[in-house]
Amino acid sequence: MTLFEKHQTLIEQAIAAGKTRNFWTPYPENPKAYGEGIDETGKAAFSTQMTQNFTQLLQVGEAWVGEEFSPYLQLGIGVKYPQSNNDTLIARAAKAQEIWSKVGIDRRAGLLVESLERVKARFFEIAYATMHTTGQAFMMSFQASGPHANDRALEAIALGYQQITSIEPTAVWTKPMGKFDLTLQKNFKAMPKGVGLVIGCSTFPIWNTVPGMYANLICGNVCIVKPHPKAILPIAIVIAEIQKLLKENGIDPMVVQLAVDTVDAPVTKQLAENKNVKLIDFTGSSSFGDYIETLPSKTTFTEKAGVNCVILDSVKDIKAVAGNIAFSASLYSGQMCTAPQNIYIPATGIATAEGHLSYEDARNAIVQAITDLADNPKMGPHILGAIQSEATLTRLQNAGTMGGNLLLAGKAIANPEFEHARVFSPAVIELSSADESIYKKECFGPIVFIIKTRDTEESLHITKNLSIEIGAITCLAFCTESKTMSMIEDAMNQVYTPVSFNLGGAAFVNSHAAFSDFHVTGGNPAGNASFTNSDYITKRFVWVGNRKME
Amino acid sequence: MTLFEKHQTLIEQAIAAGKTRNFWTPYPENPKAYGEGIDETGKAAFSTQMTQNFTQLLQVGEAWVGEEFSPYLQLGIGVKYPQSNNDTLIARAAKAQEIWSKVGIDRRAGLLVESLERVKARFFEIAYATMHTTGQAFMMSFQASGPHANDRALEAIALGYQQITSIEPTAVWTKPMGKFDLTLQKNFKAMPKGVGLVIGCSTFPIWNTVPGMYANLICGNVCIVKPHPKAILPIAIVIAEIQKLLKENGIDPMVVQLAVDTVDAPVTKQLAENKNVKLIDFTGSSSFGDYIETLPSKTTFTEKAGVNCVILDSVKDIKAVAGNIAFSASLYSGQMCTAPQNIYIPATGIATAEGHLSYEDARNAIVQAITDLADNPKMGPHILGAIQSEATLTRLQNAGTMGGNLLLAGKAIANPEFEHARVFSPAVIELSSADESIYKKECFGPIVFIIKTRDTEESLHITKNLSIEIGAITCLAFCTESKTMSMIEDAMNQVYTPVSFNLGGAAFVNSHAAFSDFHVTGGNPAGNASFTNSDYITKRFVWVGNRKME
Repeated sequence: MTLFEKHQTLIEQAIAAGKTRNFWTPYPENPKAYGEGIDETGKAAFSTQMTQNFTQLLQVGEAWVGEEFSPYLQLGIGVKYPQSNNDTLIARAAKAQEIWSKVGIDRRAGLLVESLERVKARFFEIAYATMHTTGQAFMMSFQASGPHANDRALEAIALGYQQITSIEPTAVWTKPMGKFDLTLQKNFKAMPKGVGLVIGCSTFPIWNTVPGMYANLICGNVCIVKPHPKAILPIAIVIAEIQKLLKENGIDPMVVQLAVDTVDAPVTKQLAENKNVKLIDFTGSSSFGDYIETLPSKTTFTEKAGVNCVILDSVKDIKAVAGNIAFSASLYSGQMCTAPQNIYIPATGIATAEGHLSYEDARNAIVQAITDLADNPKMGPHILGAIQSEATLTRLQNAGTMGGNLLLAGKAIANPEFEHARVFSPAVIELSSADESIYKKECFGPIVFIIKTRDTEESLHITKNLSIEIGAITCLAFCTESKTMSMIEDAMNQVYTPVSFNLGGAAFVNSHAAFSDFHVTGGNPAGNASFTNSDYITKRFVWVGNRKME
Repeated sequence: MTLFEKHQTLIEQAIAAGKTRNFWTPYPENPKAYGEGIDETGKAAFSTQMTQNFTQLLQVGEAWVGEEFSPYLQLGIGVKYPQSNNDTLIARAAKAQEIWSKVGIDRRAGLLVESLERVKARFFEIAYATMHTTGQAFMMSFQASGPHANDRALEAIALGYQQITSIEPTAVWTKPMGKFDLTLQKNFKAMPKGVGLVIGCSTFPIWNTVPGMYANLICGNVCIVKPHPKAILPIAIVIAEIQKLLKENGIDPMVVQLAVDTVDAPVTKQLAENKNVKLIDFTGSSSFGDYIETLPSKTTFTEKAGVNCVILDSVKDIKAVAGNIAFSASLYSGQMCTAPQNIYIPATGIATAEGHLSYEDARNAIVQAITDLADNPKMGPHILGAIQSEATLTRLQNAGTMGGNLLLAGKAIANPEFEHARVFSPAVIELSSADESIYKKECFGPIVFIIKTRDTEESLHITKNLSIEIGAITCLAFCTESKTMSMIEDAMNQVYTPVSFNLGGAAFVNSHAAFSDFHVTGGNPAGNASFTNSDYITKRFVWVGNRKME
């Protein structure tokens, strides 16, 4: 049985799931579904790796480099990775490209899905690696870097398989010409564009990296992954598994390579500008993303910064709504690209099922819910996670000087397991709609603005303009009137921003499920690509058709 | 019965044809298939239009503008078109956009296929309009601007329909959460990018324009078509038919508008740079195409210049091969983007079924075949057509001063029907592989280079490098050894250039059939887009998904 035969049904299910967009996943998100004792084994593997060189890669380096730092331990984790100069990486990639582009689509698909099985066996180890580089709490580390990342990877593989097999590889073309027929033999090839560079971010080192990486690989492109210098280990484990699997199958493992650098000696621009690099996937700041997008002769896929807004128009139950918003704003301390930042409440207040609620009461309900969540020792540390970078912490600590009315200052929260963990509750600042200079930009991390507007029309107007000018990945609206809901949906969709209405219970705006939700639309300044629409795939290869007369 | 129901089967057949890529068309290319008397009616309609204002459009202009010139009559055709300033065009487009984007995909598809039926009824009139603007001979005018253009338009509509219906518009997403289920209502919308500008060329005013125009329209984008000032009438007729049909169906006809200008007062750049223009399709020169591609914040689809090569390695029958090359180089006097320009013959000659043939004999066979075709009064004028522009004629007349050895000078050829027709035979210049400065660029029109190379490896090396540096739309190779064929195909496909092998009979490298051949790969400098692959469609809209909790 080939690997393709082994995984064919799964690929077909994934393609079908992408069409119907109902819930589907082959990777349970509940850690307990993976069996007894696995957690401990994974934790032990991570502990053993700490302070050691990472020797699982099949690529040789000229130096050992690493400077990751655990937001929980407030210590460097001490893992070093083989570093090669860029010319070596590119030369190895070019050599591997010749081989990989000749591996047929079925075999590529089989190998890549198999690699996800290998990664699945290391979900716990990856979770701890994610936790101690990004500051995510355990549950998010497990889910985002484990099953949810595998979902997104499988989505890219399945869509790639679907696109590349969407036309027949050969045809006998017979044109009736009256007295005779004209016949040509034709073939059609999806030619890979070449070496892909995938640039990772510090907060989601796997979830944001594997879609581009697997999309490159399924289309026959080789891939160099350059993670953020502060979040290497999680993706290094994934790359090691792929390299090992490729080698076992007699394929040059340099089809995918890890490139490492340090904050002080970055290599990303030099790699990105290399003429052999044809494809670039990037997650990170808008300024670097804009630079990537304007590089000549590159096909780029970016996810940059945006400002996600919450429009409060009318609610059934303010307590539930405030709780939902508080959770979304607190989750991983707002260090998610989907975290809400700006919350608009009309000065005249909002309608609720229990009657009218003043602006002040609505505002206070949100502040209270954020406080309650942070102060609840069974919730706070497990939702907030830890602050990944010094810069984010500094921003939080300076929130009082940004302007506006500081409703809630960020304060240190104890983590029962890690004494030194960098955990803080979010700051909440009250602004008026005139305070554009403050709220019209992304303030990455746990800073929330509550903005008093004239009415929902103004809230929507600001939200829409932010999408146009700054970009937005998502928008959350609370509204019980269907006409107003349509108005909001139409306006935001026109600027290529999705809207989530009236979320509650276990539904949070932060989550984008593979096979169903598009992550980033690619239509506003928050990014030029989308996990995972068809051109996320089709831009990575070129159809070429040949004709032959017998 | 809705228009969609009327045409649904055709759309499904077109989608299926694009998958299997066998021969398929609903529009016969033989003029006789369209019935008796239609030719005469069409010719009369064209004659009546000459010297008159074109009043069939539903758009109002501020001035009447037109300066088309018949290469057959050597006279202006005297048709003037309503010209509006760009702001008016954009304002009308923006207004129509609001309406068109709310017309559902089924209705859009039905209307657009119906418009092709309306256009079909005017194929002959369009053919004469094409003839007397581009200089194409009648048969090419009929086929390229009639059935073949409709094929390409239908291909774009069908692929658009396929892409936009590729995911379900709504989903009930139910995620099992253990003790309970989490349910969200979702919808998914293909949001159009906005106003599209389609910039036409002087030689194929319909065939090169309708793919982008219909691709825009099926995706819900409105469209402004800016034809070349010397080739307006053919596409004006098509636009008039669409406008009329839209109006009949209660839809703002400004969904598609004609923009006209003159050579001395061009409006294209101003339109292209307008912030409301989101999509640009362009066919024309590399310099203007490069400008279009680098405009910020636009999605662009370009077909630029390239150099198409012929590699002579080994043949069965040199006479048949020389005849095939002569035909391809002479067809419409080489004024096709798919016309071969550079013909490489090894200095040591080539193998044939009848034994070895010297370089000189192979070269002479091609020159003889070109001469024979041009000098045959039953063939010459009907294949050559007329020279569209003064610049092309001047280039031909100066061919003797380009360098190399002028094997054959272009000479005037009589057209039995049009005494003053600008008809010339191709010039053939002999070069060595060292003469890069001469052959390493496009010399648009009837100029052919025969280049003596060391061997087929050198021929291939030059051909491949031309694709990388200058771009190529196609490549023709004659080779009887399967190993060498594979070498040529692999090398050229790597630089995203299709190869046609051993064409003969009625098969010519110039032809790219809809539903089967990709026209331009988009992977080399000859253009960044392809008729019609999926991202030709998917780049024109943005998927946006909304979620709602009930």
